[in-house]
Amino acid sequence: MFFDTPSVERLVEAFRRLPGVGKRSAERYVLHLLSAPESDARQLSDAILEARSNITTCDVCCNLTEVNPCSICSNSRRDHTVICVVERPSGAMAIEKAGSYRGLYHILHGALNPIEGIGPSELRLDRLVKRIEANDIQEIIVATNATAEGEATALYLSHLFTNKNINVTRIAHGVPMGSGLEYSDDATLSHAILGRSRLE
Amino acid sequence: MFFDTPSVERLVEAFRRLPGVGKRSAERYVLHLLSAPESDARQLSDAILEARSNITTCDVCCNLTEVNPCSICSNSRRDHTVICVVERPSGAMAIEKAGSYRGLYHILHGALNPIEGIGPSELRLDRLVKRIEANDIQEIIVATNATAEGEATALYLSHLFTNKNINVTRIAHGVPMGSGLEYSDDATLSHAILGRSRLE
Repeated sequence: MFFDTPSVERLVEAFRRLPGVGKRSAERYVLHLLSAPESDARQLSDAILEARSNITTCDVCCNLTEVNPCSICSNSRRDHTVICVVERPSGAMAIEKAGSYRGLYHILHGALNPIEGIGPSELRLDRLVKRIEANDIQEIIVATNATAEGEATALYLSHLFTNKNINVTRIAHGVPMGSGLEYSDDATLSHAILGRSRLE
Repeated sequence: MFFDTPSVERLVEAFRRLPGVGKRSAERYVLHLLSAPESDARQLSDAILEARSNITTCDVCCNLTEVNPCSICSNSRRDHTVICVVERPSGAMAIEKAGSYRGLYHILHGALNPIEGIGPSELRLDRLVKRIEANDIQEIIVATNATAEGEATALYLSHLFTNKNINVTRIAHGVPMGSGLEYSDDATLSHAILGRSRLE
């Protein structure tokens, strides 16, 4: 085909590494960049390098940030006695967007996954332990994903802090707000029933 | 928010210029590039510039290519008496993928659109006229899109070549293969009935 040149293939492959991008989308992006004004392509290319070089991870919570420590860790109006542990920056972003949480975060940058060789030392756990030893932390909210890896990580964290004088809690799992029971899967419904709370 | 830095915003905006990429997808891409190894980000950035500098447009058919003239225009086994006119390289790519067409292409890089100021001189029409004058072309298949702009362009092309001794044809529009009548819209069904052909 007239389009299977090595440089185009490399670009298609590079786009495919982005989350949720398949072959068709990648090809559309490439066709667009090759047809659009050259400045568009240059802007995207430059913006990638620029963002990547400006953004670092916070020395305290390991979240992505441009200033160090990040604006959440250095915000005195937030509750510095609560740490919400998430797998990825996108998790912290989602909770921030929801708007009801006023504590701090800790980003593990992964979850325990023995098959892929990700053990405790591959996660940013040492920093979390140091934070807890150095500060007066009352509660750790474990907000890892509701997957096998996320649950294993949650369990590991609860054991890790079991002898320290800290409440380790897990976010609630159940039927999403606005959704009917008939749209929820079995595991979610079981969780929702087991995790029921008293109406007051 | 901890994430609204100028460099991240610029990258989100650059991604949003790609076809079909909304705010959410762009943010996902950015988060991935910032969390993934730096080599991933550099590879994508480099691949964009590399592909863009390697790929040019064919001097004959205006398609994207790495060699000039492109592999289709220089292929002696293709039918050099038929030219299929499409709006964009992606159109030629789709027809090539279908595999039944053996003639040449001509890419207009757009369609007539008076509202956006795209008239005949903004399309690669002069080159098409020159090609037709310089070569023995028997048929022009107009495969512009089935949109208002594509139809207007098709009409313009049929007038342009009306006094030249060339068959100007339009690709068929009708019910897609494998689809039922009940899934087709009114305009498609009207086209399908008007464009009916004898069963032989």
